[in-house]
Amino acid sequence: MSATKILLSEKEMPTRWYNIQADMPNLPKPPLNPVTKQPVGPEDLSAIFPMELIKQEVTRERWIDIPEEVQEIYHLWRPSPVMRAKQLEKALDTPAKIYFKYEGVSPAGSHKLNTAVPQAYFNMKEGIMRLATETGAGQWGVALSQACNFFGMKCLVYMVKVSYHQKPYRRSMMQIFGSNVVASPSELTEAGRKILADNPESPGSLGIAISEAVEDAAKRDDTNYALGSVLNHVLLHQTVIGLEAKEQLAKDDVYPDIVIACCGGGSNFGGMAFPFVYDKLTKGTNVRLIAAEPSACPTLTRGHFGYDYGDVAGLTPLLWMYTLGTDFMPPGIHSGGLRYHGDSPLVSQLLHDGIIEAKSFNQTSVFNAAVLFAKCMGIVPAPESSHAIQCAIEEALAAKEAGEAKTIIFNLSGHGFLDLPSYDSFMAGKLIDYPLPEEELKQSLARLPQI
Amino acid sequence: MSATKILLSEKEMPTRWYNIQADMPNLPKPPLNPVTKQPVGPEDLSAIFPMELIKQEVTRERWIDIPEEVQEIYHLWRPSPVMRAKQLEKALDTPAKIYFKYEGVSPAGSHKLNTAVPQAYFNMKEGIMRLATETGAGQWGVALSQACNFFGMKCLVYMVKVSYHQKPYRRSMMQIFGSNVVASPSELTEAGRKILADNPESPGSLGIAISEAVEDAAKRDDTNYALGSVLNHVLLHQTVIGLEAKEQLAKDDVYPDIVIACCGGGSNFGGMAFPFVYDKLTKGTNVRLIAAEPSACPTLTRGHFGYDYGDVAGLTPLLWMYTLGTDFMPPGIHSGGLRYHGDSPLVSQLLHDGIIEAKSFNQTSVFNAAVLFAKCMGIVPAPESSHAIQCAIEEALAAKEAGEAKTIIFNLSGHGFLDLPSYDSFMAGKLIDYPLPEEELKQSLARLPQI
Repeated sequence: MSATKILLSEKEMPTRWYNIQADMPNLPKPPLNPVTKQPVGPEDLSAIFPMELIKQEVTRERWIDIPEEVQEIYHLWRPSPVMRAKQLEKALDTPAKIYFKYEGVSPAGSHKLNTAVPQAYFNMKEGIMRLATETGAGQWGVALSQACNFFGMKCLVYMVKVSYHQKPYRRSMMQIFGSNVVASPSELTEAGRKILADNPESPGSLGIAISEAVEDAAKRDDTNYALGSVLNHVLLHQTVIGLEAKEQLAKDDVYPDIVIACCGGGSNFGGMAFPFVYDKLTKGTNVRLIAAEPSACPTLTRGHFGYDYGDVAGLTPLLWMYTLGTDFMPPGIHSGGLRYHGDSPLVSQLLHDGIIEAKSFNQTSVFNAAVLFAKCMGIVPAPESSHAIQCAIEEALAAKEAGEAKTIIFNLSGHGFLDLPSYDSFMAGKLIDYPLPEEELKQSLARLPQI
Repeated sequence: MSATKILLSEKEMPTRWYNIQADMPNLPKPPLNPVTKQPVGPEDLSAIFPMELIKQEVTRERWIDIPEEVQEIYHLWRPSPVMRAKQLEKALDTPAKIYFKYEGVSPAGSHKLNTAVPQAYFNMKEGIMRLATETGAGQWGVALSQACNFFGMKCLVYMVKVSYHQKPYRRSMMQIFGSNVVASPSELTEAGRKILADNPESPGSLGIAISEAVEDAAKRDDTNYALGSVLNHVLLHQTVIGLEAKEQLAKDDVYPDIVIACCGGGSNFGGMAFPFVYDKLTKGTNVRLIAAEPSACPTLTRGHFGYDYGDVAGLTPLLWMYTLGTDFMPPGIHSGGLRYHGDSPLVSQLLHDGIIEAKSFNQTSVFNAAVLFAKCMGIVPAPESSHAIQCAIEEALAAKEAGEAKTIIFNLSGHGFLDLPSYDSFMAGKLIDYPLPEEELKQSLARLPQI
């Protein structure tokens, strides 16, 4: 029997994050102040972020030390396992070796905790003991709640109202860790009160919740804001995933031909892929890096590359990225974590420069892949992560077609224990492949800010 | 930093299960045929169990080989980690070292998969490709569904009707793995039809579901029955937990003073404790072994030691065990896995002989312990497992009182991702400590079979 799991000891866990800004041939254009349209400086951000994270956002240092206190909390679940999906290889009858990194072992159930912990930590170190954030389906809210709890900090989560009522379990988890969870739009902020005055029955949206959290943080001296994806420092923290994975594959004497991760705001893809992009950029290593996204929200495969706002109300800085436009409302697919109109500027720039690839996948093919994977490996995957599984399956079948023994690794970013209602709908035949609303996309792209 | 996790490689996983029947000073009295009241022989059981499991039920061999095919599936999640709960020790300000074994890493989310896999395997080896079973809240049904899926077998799960409708998520998981899940009472069996004729609105019960599954298996040549706890072979398979834990503690150069596990039918407790009972019985090692049960269903602490049926209808063999009587309906606590009227004969006999201990815990103290543990370690535990946490906390506080640096280990048998509604009720202040229905217990005990 060859080993199924490749484990690292805590001593083998990376003690530094990898900053890809040190090695990119072209950096993204700088974020712009939404009012002045001038590049934002540290002072613009210091009202809502601690100085250490602002530094991480812009530094070109290649390696950033992981503080010992953060390492100690990482040890609650890290290093996470890499597993060889032998049973999936057999089911596909492919000569490809399929590995996956499993981030679902985190107590939050996803990779989000990798950045929630350092974000909370760096705020705490600068005396900020209260964080405000937004959450849609709740993955990020759970992770930040756990992280704040570890450092004795308060956490206020603006949760999109429709999810607050329809997905009470992630809300329960946030409350177990002591967070105050508020249905957004709320009466707590001007932004929320304005929406409620216009429409008392508003179901809320991520854009509104971001506005409320940012307003909360900007108005209170004791409070900062935290974001779960998109920004450079978030992707930096997630690189612990790919750094570990590379060490683990080396223990099995392999280097991947293809590295795959699902991509919403980019933190999961960046975390898995950037340590391999490092090899490609600095050593000329031949490795394909594929971002897997939903065809119903095809930011990287159908978006425009340029400046756009991070939120619907246009309160955040303008980011240089692939975007579908803030007016684009993606169809109601069951991968809430991948329904974002924009994408990480770092990921966007790498795609634009041809260093990475992106592919999109239909919802039903993704759920078919998820069920096949579950039957082979036992693990019920999160729908978001299942985009990476479907991508890996397609690559493994292409390898079979070509008779090539490729080595493939994908990141399984989270488990699906809290996504079982989506599986229920799938098995009842109720999930459909939404056609992309082409006319809506065209109009949304036409309304992009002209800069 | 001392290590948080103690890991074993797959090569270090035990390759044999430990059979405590080899070392017990007194074996339980034999099971009796429910009709003749004579000891059951292999022929009585062969209609619903494969011969290899019947052998394991009665053998006095000390070590039983784990088949290689079972080991390979175990490797999907085993060896499971032992963790040092440093943050919990700190929160309690105790000199005690607190460790826990974590079985929630299994893809089923609990220890149940440890026996589901070999049970499916030994049936498959004897040509039986269809299993029938019952499930209440669904932990066992999920585990057996996964196990049957791995060996290409069919699985029919009779799920208590009220759970089928109120707890659809574990049902979804069984269906993902291809099981046929039927609300019990059903029209598929005589037992079910009889109940429905009397009461078409019957919510079902575990007793009825057992009757349906046993009838299904007894009537069909191609089908056997599988049980998730109580029986000797089930506890045998679970000993992989304690065997691993002992190796892991040895890596940290410690041997426990106290070993704790929650106890419903006994498979979790037996699996964790028996390898340590072995040391106590054969080497005179001084170690306390504590079974933690709910005060609302206090089988070991308030039950009668004698013969009783395993099911409500009296169709199963009479087992020699602690029992509250089959008429005892425990209050509706949120630890569905611990609401069984009887207990494993092996565990019962060891308790009767003073080799192990039992303690009972109120529901609200258990949930308080669960939330404290979650805040310290990140993991949201299953309510059943949280009985062991509360017991460990009490022992750690007693050690503090006595100024003794005891070493405590408990088994965290499962995670609570599918139990969040119970946490919701607890945090809303809706969970109460049910007083034991003393009069009902007295009457139930008075109606025990007279043998």
